[in-house]
Amino acid sequence: MTGHSRDYDPHTFTGLTFHDRKKAFADGSDSPSAYLERCLETVAAREPVVKAFASMNEDAARAAADASSKRWKDGTPLSAIDGMPVGIKDLLETRDMPTGMGCAALEGNFPKNDNAAVWALRQAGAVIFGKTVTAELGGNHPGPTTNPFDHGRTPGGSSSGSAAAVASAMMPAAIGTQVGGSIIRPAAFCGNFALKPSQGGIHRGERQTTSMSTHGPHAACIEDMWQVAIEIASRTGGDPGYPGLTGPLTTPHPVRPERLIVLETEGWAKLDSGTVSAFEQFLEGLQRAGVTLMRRKDHPLVESMEAKIANATEVCGTITAWENRWYQRNLVDRHPDGVSARTQATLAKAEKMTPDDYQRLLLEREHARTCHKALAPLADAAITLACPGPAPLWAGDKPGEPLAPRPTGDAVFNYGSSLLGAPVVTLPVMAVDGMPVGLQIMGQHNTDARITALGRWIYENVDPVAVKAS
Amino acid sequence: MTGHSRDYDPHTFTGLTFHDRKKAFADGSDSPSAYLERCLETVAAREPVVKAFASMNEDAARAAADASSKRWKDGTPLSAIDGMPVGIKDLLETRDMPTGMGCAALEGNFPKNDNAAVWALRQAGAVIFGKTVTAELGGNHPGPTTNPFDHGRTPGGSSSGSAAAVASAMMPAAIGTQVGGSIIRPAAFCGNFALKPSQGGIHRGERQTTSMSTHGPHAACIEDMWQVAIEIASRTGGDPGYPGLTGPLTTPHPVRPERLIVLETEGWAKLDSGTVSAFEQFLEGLQRAGVTLMRRKDHPLVESMEAKIANATEVCGTITAWENRWYQRNLVDRHPDGVSARTQATLAKAEKMTPDDYQRLLLEREHARTCHKALAPLADAAITLACPGPAPLWAGDKPGEPLAPRPTGDAVFNYGSSLLGAPVVTLPVMAVDGMPVGLQIMGQHNTDARITALGRWIYENVDPVAVKAS
Repeated sequence: MTGHSRDYDPHTFTGLTFHDRKKAFADGSDSPSAYLERCLETVAAREPVVKAFASMNEDAARAAADASSKRWKDGTPLSAIDGMPVGIKDLLETRDMPTGMGCAALEGNFPKNDNAAVWALRQAGAVIFGKTVTAELGGNHPGPTTNPFDHGRTPGGSSSGSAAAVASAMMPAAIGTQVGGSIIRPAAFCGNFALKPSQGGIHRGERQTTSMSTHGPHAACIEDMWQVAIEIASRTGGDPGYPGLTGPLTTPHPVRPERLIVLETEGWAKLDSGTVSAFEQFLEGLQRAGVTLMRRKDHPLVESMEAKIANATEVCGTITAWENRWYQRNLVDRHPDGVSARTQATLAKAEKMTPDDYQRLLLEREHARTCHKALAPLADAAITLACPGPAPLWAGDKPGEPLAPRPTGDAVFNYGSSLLGAPVVTLPVMAVDGMPVGLQIMGQHNTDARITALGRWIYENVDPVAVKAS
Repeated sequence: MTGHSRDYDPHTFTGLTFHDRKKAFADGSDSPSAYLERCLETVAAREPVVKAFASMNEDAARAAADASSKRWKDGTPLSAIDGMPVGIKDLLETRDMPTGMGCAALEGNFPKNDNAAVWALRQAGAVIFGKTVTAELGGNHPGPTTNPFDHGRTPGGSSSGSAAAVASAMMPAAIGTQVGGSIIRPAAFCGNFALKPSQGGIHRGERQTTSMSTHGPHAACIEDMWQVAIEIASRTGGDPGYPGLTGPLTTPHPVRPERLIVLETEGWAKLDSGTVSAFEQFLEGLQRAGVTLMRRKDHPLVESMEAKIANATEVCGTITAWENRWYQRNLVDRHPDGVSARTQATLAKAEKMTPDDYQRLLLEREHARTCHKALAPLADAAITLACPGPAPLWAGDKPGEPLAPRPTGDAVFNYGSSLLGAPVVTLPVMAVDGMPVGLQIMGQHNTDARITALGRWIYENVDPVAVKAS
């Protein structure tokens, strides 16, 4: 049951890509239907152990792929992702599959609506492939999904299934969501590319109740990552009141950064020596490639930024707990046994708060955002680790013992950018002990296209790093 | 069926108030249970013609009132509104009544959750009294409610039932919602006090999908209006990401305005002579009371503000149509015959838009908000009419004829403050031909308590005006 391959190496790993099939679809040597069948074969082989899916609708996927195949044959694809199998995190509503949110209380919930992002994907011709496992209600209580590179480890969360399905080549892309670190962390643990857009960048449809959540794609390459994001945003725009993700309708060309800020974040103290070594080696590679790095000791504004995000875990987590409490209170009242003890503990904490507590946290967030804006002229972007080392082992809660606070891993490197509402791209450029460790690049608000361009240059021009710690 | 009393006069009209019963509840000469029974008697007498309710749960209301009566008797009321019967607009979810949203497609919709505002009201001891009729989905397609002062006229919309129930003394307060003019317009047509809070001021619970909607109370006096608002906000806070309505936990004391800006808005051209006369007479009363008025000719910034809100109807309406389209598209797909032609026409218009169109409208809105901020040092607040004259007659759509665009009346005087996200209080200080016409007072963002204080002073110190136009 538990696999311990741990053979991931970013020098050699290749994932399942889609953008490179368009010529073959057009000339008839491949088709979205054939592509889908290959995905389904991989699912058949790997899903019993990876457990990435909450539900699947193969009939609907095959019908969509057939329609797409015809369009490519006729020379009338709807978009660059026409025919692309895309997984949908099981927090988002889909009209042809239930939406269980990883929560027993929502067993059988089937609203028969499409989330705005799902609607856009269908309009673009994408093949909605299945609902991917989420940690309960997008929080910390894990589902059954395992890490494709070591089945004893978490794939991260809460976008567990989206990350694992892409990493195990079951599909080329999947939609995740992030409030604290739910896109970036699992992507980093699973060797994916992923975009957490600027706050408000991609319309969240019915999921508007938290002020720091975003929808974003996981993919096996940066081209597919960007293409999925822009195909959605060019149809739905951003959240109500936000201009939304904008940028080129094809992946931005690589742009060489002159200067990057290196952030440590509150995660620095939690790093193992192997991960520190991998990160520092990667930084050396960046410098060899001509990029100037600026760290906390190099400029007082960088030090200020570090100070402003030093308690981001607490601030983000508490804001989000407060924002979730109406929904969770209703759910717990209706299904007292249908919500995990882990989530109920978070709710209990939120219900001790007052609006004044929330106002104070919003003010802390605003201070951090003001500080981040002041960094804009200093550098092209900021980088840091996307996770505090390889995905951790977790065998399940032990009866009688306290609940593990972070069974899907620690989002300590992700809360900073979530607090800032800043766009982040994760790049799979490191391995520690045969497990993926991601690098994240963070930009100013609404510079999603630019950090994608910078990230693309880094990925194409700096050698990845694989270290063995032990 | 159709009544034509039109005998409203703000000099003599008195509504059903609650704040003045607390002493009687405490000394046992009255009780929330007795208060509720009086409300139910009024409902029995007036509801057959007013038609303010979509549903009612008398058993639950009586149980809540009994519990409240006991608390008052024991000297342990939960709040200043413990025992207050409050109606809930039928867009908001309530755990003990269905949520039909005035839409055939939602017939029988019964999510068994409490909207955050409803939750807060219950926590404060309020008696959730019934669901009040809303125009379909909060838009323009009217429900059956009639104006209590002339049953051939609209009560306004979309908070039709909330406005009419308060105006007909069926209850002392009710929750409405506004995107364009859905709190202020019906309050003005029905002679209520009402608060449209600053954008984000009162937590909207599950109703987060539009960027200009707010929840706010209708009441028969300013004391009850403020008390309901602050009892909710002090428990729920504001919307995600907003600090929320703050202010004193009892109604702010009257504050005399030194100087008020008088806005004409795009509604000015639509006024009948009776309404112009009533408004100008009221302005003269303000001046006699020592308030300096500043109009568009008096300062270039006021003229700029008028220009920036001169197309507020179009900008607000189009932004909102775009923001509603995901929800409405899902609903129409599932229930093609369950949504009115009026709403489907709005959806069709929205589906012709692109994210770029939406971005341009957001920019116009931002320009208007910037201009509004610049007015802050000029005056204490701005005033204008709350509706373009008395509630209009409307007998229903005529088969074969084009649909009336505004069967619940024109929100032309309300779109400005909605566009600005600014707080507004409506005061029932005018009558034209025996029908109510409201005055609104608008402040800078998050000055809800201050405009309540200014509005209270105006109401207490300036003579109301009643004119006969014909």
